[in-house]
Amino acid sequence: MDTTQATPGAANGSAAVPLTLRRVAIDTYRENVAYLHRDCAVYRAEGFQALAKVEVRANGRRILATLNVTTDPRIVRCNELGLSEDAFAQLGGQGGDPVLVSQAEPASSIPALHRKIAGERLTADDFQSIVRDIAEHRYSKIELTAFVVACNQGELDREEVYFLTEAMSRVGRRLDWHERPVVDKHCIGGIPGNRTSMLVVPIVAAHGMLCPKTSSRAITSPAGTADTMEVLAGVELPMDTLSDIVREHRGCLAWGGTAQLSPADDVLISVERPLSIDSPGQMVASILSKKIAAGSTHLVLDIPVGPTAKVRSMPEAQRLRKLFEFVASRMNLTLDVVITDGRQPVGAGIGPVLEARDVMRVLENDPRAPIDLRQKALRLAGRMLEFDPDVRGGDGFAIARDILDSGRALAKMNAIIHAQGARPFDHNAPELARLSFEVMAGECGVVTSIDNHQLARIARLAGAPKVRGAGVDLLRKMGEAVAAGDALYRVHADFPADLDFARQAAARSSGYRIGGADEVPHMFVEF
Amino acid sequence: MDTTQATPGAANGSAAVPLTLRRVAIDTYRENVAYLHRDCAVYRAEGFQALAKVEVRANGRRILATLNVTTDPRIVRCNELGLSEDAFAQLGGQGGDPVLVSQAEPASSIPALHRKIAGERLTADDFQSIVRDIAEHRYSKIELTAFVVACNQGELDREEVYFLTEAMSRVGRRLDWHERPVVDKHCIGGIPGNRTSMLVVPIVAAHGMLCPKTSSRAITSPAGTADTMEVLAGVELPMDTLSDIVREHRGCLAWGGTAQLSPADDVLISVERPLSIDSPGQMVASILSKKIAAGSTHLVLDIPVGPTAKVRSMPEAQRLRKLFEFVASRMNLTLDVVITDGRQPVGAGIGPVLEARDVMRVLENDPRAPIDLRQKALRLAGRMLEFDPDVRGGDGFAIARDILDSGRALAKMNAIIHAQGARPFDHNAPELARLSFEVMAGECGVVTSIDNHQLARIARLAGAPKVRGAGVDLLRKMGEAVAAGDALYRVHADFPADLDFARQAAARSSGYRIGGADEVPHMFVEF
Repeated sequence: MDTTQATPGAANGSAAVPLTLRRVAIDTYRENVAYLHRDCAVYRAEGFQALAKVEVRANGRRILATLNVTTDPRIVRCNELGLSEDAFAQLGGQGGDPVLVSQAEPASSIPALHRKIAGERLTADDFQSIVRDIAEHRYSKIELTAFVVACNQGELDREEVYFLTEAMSRVGRRLDWHERPVVDKHCIGGIPGNRTSMLVVPIVAAHGMLCPKTSSRAITSPAGTADTMEVLAGVELPMDTLSDIVREHRGCLAWGGTAQLSPADDVLISVERPLSIDSPGQMVASILSKKIAAGSTHLVLDIPVGPTAKVRSMPEAQRLRKLFEFVASRMNLTLDVVITDGRQPVGAGIGPVLEARDVMRVLENDPRAPIDLRQKALRLAGRMLEFDPDVRGGDGFAIARDILDSGRALAKMNAIIHAQGARPFDHNAPELARLSFEVMAGECGVVTSIDNHQLARIARLAGAPKVRGAGVDLLRKMGEAVAAGDALYRVHADFPADLDFARQAAARSSGYRIGGADEVPHMFVEF
Repeated sequence: MDTTQATPGAANGSAAVPLTLRRVAIDTYRENVAYLHRDCAVYRAEGFQALAKVEVRANGRRILATLNVTTDPRIVRCNELGLSEDAFAQLGGQGGDPVLVSQAEPASSIPALHRKIAGERLTADDFQSIVRDIAEHRYSKIELTAFVVACNQGELDREEVYFLTEAMSRVGRRLDWHERPVVDKHCIGGIPGNRTSMLVVPIVAAHGMLCPKTSSRAITSPAGTADTMEVLAGVELPMDTLSDIVREHRGCLAWGGTAQLSPADDVLISVERPLSIDSPGQMVASILSKKIAAGSTHLVLDIPVGPTAKVRSMPEAQRLRKLFEFVASRMNLTLDVVITDGRQPVGAGIGPVLEARDVMRVLENDPRAPIDLRQKALRLAGRMLEFDPDVRGGDGFAIARDILDSGRALAKMNAIIHAQGARPFDHNAPELARLSFEVMAGECGVVTSIDNHQLARIARLAGAPKVRGAGVDLLRKMGEAVAAGDALYRVHADFPADLDFARQAAARSSGYRIGGADEVPHMFVEF
């Protein structure tokens, strides 16, 4: 029995003393920082320590922040609480507002986190509470990383992946389009170029299916669909505008960030990105939770396979496919997984402007359009069209091709671009970054492989996606013959330093291999 | 073959432009932060991003820091680079010095880190490069956490623990005392009170053995040996002074931080602490690498076992013992592991001043001295004395007791205290924190258990170790009879808020159980 009682010697409760809110013009990038003066009475009374998590309250709102302590009254005075730019914006107050600060309660899911670190299996409730704490920014960077690494290493079992997906889809906003089917397509990523969404959406929407596509910006790649679409039109749209556009045009190509569809995922990415962690369980939970939250009922999922793709072998692709199918079925999402050729980049351009150029050339039926991009987009669109009960199995590809060849896809794309706010763009004269160099073949032969990682890396070093016109333009693809001195690709950059970085990387390894025609590897892909 | 060549289009190298160094009076606690103005030419040219790792060079020195970006010229102007307090001190320059900043090269051991995250076994070389990067602050908090969690979860095998220990002992300073044996004792921790080092060192040094003890400050506990010793004497000693003291008095009780014995460990602690991770492999590597670096040749290691100790069962203690023995033998360290009673705190006081009081009472042979602390210290000292080739096996305890009872241990302790810089202290009137309350037994019976965690937690909430006079004074120990209303322990605090926190925690659970005399669990311990 635990039956003892505490009796007071000499004490009194500590009253909450308000401070004055101040905006500190420091950008701490996704990390809320609060600044207190070392002589601040509250700091001394509460016994805070630098880097402790504190809770800041004002005007009925509440944020969590990491504490930094200063002795410079020009940053904060003794009676002030400073907040870094993001934190100040999140709290939504004004400089001078009264503000309360206290030690943050530790996240209640921490014991569950410790069980996961120790390698135990977690329950649905555990995942719910962990994901809620993550979405509310109650986890420190250290705790977030521990969760990601612990889930990565122990390999979540498929029930746990379902629990995590369900928990992640619940904490954010959930859209309801009041009709079925709501179709979407998604690629697990890893292949530069590969801008099929910007072709698939106008084709499918032109057919009349509802396809409200929200995409991400580049995280580790040289361009995300949102970055490329932004070359042509606005992508940061308020939800009301987005709804209107989708209702009128049956489709959109917007950035998903404003929709707050999976706030926990946005937080997790901040540690997954620097660690390049992309475990199957986290990939499935991240992708499917966002689709469910976006109101999708039907999804075509693209898993590219190749030696430098995320998935390197057919058995691995099949394992991943089963995991996606298991979780999707639990979540009542109709899923069609397609395994595609991921041996090399898709299309010619790598980087927002270069990729926008390729997309528009396909839509315009321009002879310079990359044929592989066109073919892949038609196949994916065909599968999506077959979600329509009125389309016979096997007819999707031909219908998609007709929509594209007839110019109806282009007309739909132009309608969407204008609805989202068109930006001037001419695919005959795209605004590429002003500096460039070419990488040449050192010998004659046939291109036997192109390394997705290395080309993506060179494009990023050149400045993509931040510099929109930067990137890599592929002049040769696998199987093509080259002579010594032929240009393999051209790198574009705006800053001399960026160009140098890209050049050094290309000099270390161009990413291309030249060999005999019989050395081009054949790869079985499903479609 | 990868045989291509890069040819320039239009580019030039970017020259390094120096900025002016400025100290920014912000304490960011063990995390180096660099501040640049958003309009700074270098910032724009290099394309830095907030939270990127940058390398800062001045006067031939180099540090790594996380970048924060500001628009407030009162923090830094366009031509300045600001550094947070710790970072500024590390760089060792003066405000106004010319300083260069560039993107930090990513740590070269990151591929090895990724292999560990994926669950692979690492080589000695992998551990060397990871530990070197950690010691040089090349890892972000996220990467550090990933390393700690990956090592924790996959359970390093014993060869890997040896590689990690070897790597950690190599990166720091290594002391050489030019004689053998150099003896030390260490406890794996987790038991409040338990201040045996402050008794063992004077006993062993009085016998004439070399015992240069460096200790840590509290990390998650209410007091470390360094915190408690600091009540009596200075503990932050320059290496030269430390050497002189050890040479003259054969022993010391100093803080280990200044010695820079295991800089990688100091960095790892910054993420292990918030996660409460203490895996066997990391414990062994952390403890043994520091002992080797401190020049110890012989070590007595104390593993307390009990239901609320770090090690909860005898089989677990034996597994840990084997791991310590395996690694110690590879490192040529003579090791004697003792498994001790960890069912409750050792001694009466928990908190720096209270523990210093207990220690001095044992040395003074005061009748109020806690008998359990005295007995445990004598047993540990006895084992250390038996490292002396001239001491017969089994005679150590009696020799230790003679040294203590005769007052020679007290004389030695006073000599060490004076050499390190004595502080006024009277164990008859220790300066306890001014507020207090008592926790009473709710019923009559016998104390059947005392929860180490809960008592440590209450002492920390009361302010220990930061408030030196704060903590918990145990008035009853296991097996003692109590009547309802008898005081079990007294809590001391300086701040009303601290007292309230401690009182609330004690009200939720006092940490004591009262039951029948037959319910006191018996525990087999080795010694």
